Amino acid sequence: MRPVIALLTDFGLEDHYVGVMKAVIAGIAPEANVVDISHAVPPQAILAGQRLLQASVPYLPDGAIVLAVVDPGVGSERRPMALRSGRLTFVGPDNGLFTPWLPGEVAVELTAPEFRLPEVSATFHGRDVFAPAAAHLAAGVPLEKLGPKLADSVRLDPPRPRTAQDGTIQGEVVYVDHFDNLITNIGGVRGGTARIRGHDLPVQATYSAVNPGELLALIGSDGALEVAMRNGSAAAYLSAEAGEPVTWRPR
Amino acid sequence: MRPVIALLTDFGLEDHYVGVMKAVIAGIAPEANVVDISHAVPPQAILAGQRLLQASVPYLPDGAIVLAVVDPGVGSERRPMALRSGRLTFVGPDNGLFTPWLPGEVAVELTAPEFRLPEVSATFHGRDVFAPAAAHLAAGVPLEKLGPKLADSVRLDPPRPRTAQDGTIQGEVVYVDHFDNLITNIGGVRGGTARIRGHDLPVQATYSAVNPGELLALIGSDGALEVAMRNGSAAAYLSAEAGEPVTWRPR
Amino acid sequence: MRPVIALLTDFGLEDHYVGVMKAVIAGIAPEANVVDISHAVPPQAILAGQRLLQASVPYLPDGAIVLAVVDPGVGSERRPMALRSGRLTFVGPDNGLFTPWLPGEVAVELTAPEFRLPEVSATFHGRDVFAPAAAHLAAGVPLEKLGPKLADSVRLDPPRPRTAQDGTIQGEVVYVDHFDNLITNIGGVRGGTARIRGHDLPVQATYSAVNPGELLALIGSDGALEVAMRNGSAAAYLSAEAGEPVTWRPR
Repeated sequence: MRPVIALLTDFGLEDHYVGVMKAVIAGIAPEANVVDISHAVPPQAILAGQRLLQASVPYLPDGAIVLAVVDPGVGSERRPMALRSGRLTFVGPDNGLFTPWLPGEVAVELTAPEFRLPEVSATFHGRDVFAPAAAHLAAGVPLEKLGPKLADSVRLDPPRPRTAQDGTIQGEVVYVDHFDNLITNIGGVRGGTARIRGHDLPVQATYSAVNPGELLALIGSDGALEVAMRNGSAAAYLSAEAGEPVTWRPR
Repeated sequence: MRPVIALLTDFGLEDHYVGVMKAVIAGIAPEANVVDISHAVPPQAILAGQRLLQASVPYLPDGAIVLAVVDPGVGSERRPMALRSGRLTFVGPDNGLFTPWLPGEVAVELTAPEFRLPEVSATFHGRDVFAPAAAHLAAGVPLEKLGPKLADSVRLDPPRPRTAQDGTIQGEVVYVDHFDNLITNIGGVRGGTARIRGHDLPVQATYSAVNPGELLALIGSDGALEVAMRNGSAAAYLSAEAGEPVTWRPR
Repeated sequence: MRPVIALLTDFGLEDHYVGVMKAVIAGIAPEANVVDISHAVPPQAILAGQRLLQASVPYLPDGAIVLAVVDPGVGSERRPMALRSGRLTFVGPDNGLFTPWLPGEVAVELTAPEFRLPEVSATFHGRDVFAPAAAHLAAGVPLEKLGPKLADSVRLDPPRPRTAQDGTIQGEVVYVDHFDNLITNIGGVRGGTARIRGHDLPVQATYSAVNPGELLALIGSDGALEVAMRNGSAAAYLSAEAGEPVTWRPR
C-alpha cells in the first residue's frame, strides 16, 4: 500500500517552502503519496489549522501520516512531536495543533538525529525536522525510534458556543470560505433558525431551497451551521467576517 | 499503466475542499496520478470551467479520467454524471460543463450507493459522489456499474463570434490570463488584424515580433486570437476585461 | 527509483498552463514524481526564479530533473536547453535561469523533434518543448539524444553586495516572503548587526530571541541575512520591499 502523507501548513504557495518539504520527502520516501490539504492557513493561526485538520482527516485512508506545520514557536523550546492516535499519525510542533487527537496511543519528541536533516536550522523545522520524520514514518520506521516519549503535550482549545436553558446556542463565525460562506462554531443541530446581523434564517437542507441571491442557513458539509447566499456572497452582503456573533434557536 | 485523474474545480486552494477530494481518491485508488488543472475557476462559472477543460484535455494521456466540479446546482435535482467520450472519461455535475464531449459513447447517472461515500451531504458532492466515482473508475470499476444510463444530458454553449460576409469576425475577450493577456473567443484564423479599443494590431507569429512594452495580437497556444503586451500587461494598458469587444479582419 | 521532476514556473495556478505541463509529463513518464517548487515567480523575473531554485535544489534527491520555465524570450531565437550539472539535470530556456549550475558537465539544445510534441507553438514551450524533454529524461532517454551540444550558455548574475575594508557589507532586500520577512542578498555572515531604515538590529539565533511584535535580524533557513518581526510583518512595519538597502556590520 502506497503511504499517504497529508500536508497542511501556513507557508503559502508563493515561496519555495512547501516545495522544499516535498523535495525532502521525495528523497526519503519516494513512494509516498503527498496530498496537500491547504497551505493557506493564516500565518501562525494554530486554531485555524486545527479546524482544517478536523474537517479533513476523517477522509484520509487508514495509516495516513498528517504532516502539519503552523509553528509560531519555531526555534524556541517548543518541542517537535509525532503522535499516533487511532488510525493516523500526526507530525508537527507540540503547540496544540493536534489537541483533538490527544492523548492518542503514544507521542514522542522528535530528537533522534538520524531522522532529521544533518543540519537543523533555527527557523525552518518543516524542512529539517518534520518532513524527514514524516517521510521516515512513511518509509516504515517505527514511531518509537524517532525519539523519547512525550507525556504532557500542549493543548489548545477553540472558543466553544454557549447553550442556554431554552436550547438557544450563542456562537460565532469562525471561518469565511472560498465561496464567501460564513462557517460557524455551532455544530450538532438540526432544523431551527439562525440569526445573524438582524436576519432570521430558517435552516434549509440545501442551497437550492432559496432563490439565487437569497440568504440561507444550512448545515455545511463538515456538520457546522453556516450562513450562505445562493450563487452570491454572504460575507459581502452581510459585511461579516470571523468573530461575527450567530445565534441558533431550535424553532 | 498508472491511471491519471485530472482535477478541475472552482473550490480555490485556501480551504480544505480540494485536499479532501484527494484524500478520498487516495483511499480508493492509491496508485492514481492526480493532476491539478486549475482550482481557480471563478465560483460557479460553468463556461469558464468548460473553456479550461477544452484547452487542457487534448494533452491528457489515453484513458485519463477528468474529474471536474463547477456545481452551482449541488443538492438540487441536478444529476451527477459520468461520461465516456473518445479516449477519456468525464465525472461531474450534469449541468453543461462537459457539453463539448457530448453525447460521447455512454453517460450514466451516479446513483450506485456502493460507489459513493456512505453518507452523502447536500452541499459537497465533490467529496461524497464525484471523487469516489472517479477513483473507482481509476481502480478499474466499469463505467456502467456506477448507475443507470443517462440519455438527455444538459447542454451549455458559450457565446459564438459572428462572421460577416466580408470575413470580418466580431468576438470578445473571454478570459484574462495570469500574464494579463486577453484571450478571445475568435479561433481558426491566420494573419489579419485585430481591433480592440481603437487599436489596430496585425496578428504576429510571436511576442518577440514587437518591442518590449508594445501591444500585439497573436494566435495563442490554444488556437485562439489573443491580445498581449510584450513583457507588460495588455489588460491594464487597455483597461480591458472579459466581455470587451474584439474585431478580426482578414487584412 | 521513482524519478523526481521538480517544477518551477511564473505561470501562476489560476490558468491551466501548469496542469497541461503535468498532463504532458503523465503521458510520457507515468511514474514520475512531480514536485512543485513554486509557480508564483513574478512574471518573467529570471533572477527571482534563479533565487528560488538556489534555495530548493540542494534538497532534491540525486538524479532529480529540474524543469523551470521563466521565459520572456519564448518564440524568439532564445534556445531551449537541458543541462547536466553534478547530481541534477536542468531543463528550460537558455536565458540565464540556470547560471549557478553552469557550465556543468554537458548542455544540449532541445531540437530533436521526437522528444517535442508533434506541434510546437510559438508561445508555450513549457508544454511543447520543456515538459516533453523533462519527461523523456525521467523515462530514461539519455540527455545527449535531445539535441546537439550547446557550448555558450547565456549567463545572468544577480547584483552582488559590496564589502568594505572594515568588513561592512552593503546589500539589499531581494525578496519579501509569505510571512513578510525581508530576505537580503547578504550571505556568509555570523553575528553582527543589520541596519535597515534607521533600525540597528543585532543578528539573533531565532525569532523567539525577541518579544512578539519586535523587529529582529537573523540568518534565514537558506543562509541569507533576513529582517523579520516576531509574529508580525516586517515589510509592513518598515514599509520596505525588494530593493531596500540593508547594511551589515561585524559588530
